[in-house]
Amino acid sequence: MAKVKVHVFLKPGVLDVQGKAVEGALHGLGWAGVAHARVGKLIEFDLDGVEDLAAEAKKMCETLLANTVIESYRIEVA
Amino acid sequence: MAKVKVHVFLKPGVLDVQGKAVEGALHGLGWAGVAHARVGKLIEFDLDGVEDLAAEAKKMCETLLANTVIESYRIEVA
Repeated sequence: MAKVKVHVFLKPGVLDVQGKAVEGALHGLGWAGVAHARVGKLIEFDLDGVEDLAAEAKKMCETLLANTVIESYRIEVA
Repeated sequence: MAKVKVHVFLKPGVLDVQGKAVEGALHGLGWAGVAHARVGKLIEFDLDGVEDLAAEAKKMCETLLANTVIESYRIEVA
């Protein structure tokens, strides 16, 4: 059994409204040095019964976990 | 300038409906070996003009980024 972590982020150039909101709120709270805030998703799960973990995780991202038109993903298998 | 990454997850025991939905969908797509799926947030930003980066990031989490009643967080400073 392996632990799979998938990081999903909006691609550079796609407006990240959540990130802008976080950045604005942090500025409002006095942290003026915050810049380039981006908010993504982190999906963790246990995976069992497959041979090539990374390849299966990639398939999962392409079909379900990420919208590859606007999102990029990174897979970590541990 | 440092890059700060904050991982926010629901605490164990708190029902993660997004995680359950992902798990169910992956099962439906034929990946029966998926278990314990959890969906969290990943917040990345650049931070400048503070002395103790980790301490400031912790303060940000406590005040804005995480709801510490139901969420736990992990900070990475790079």
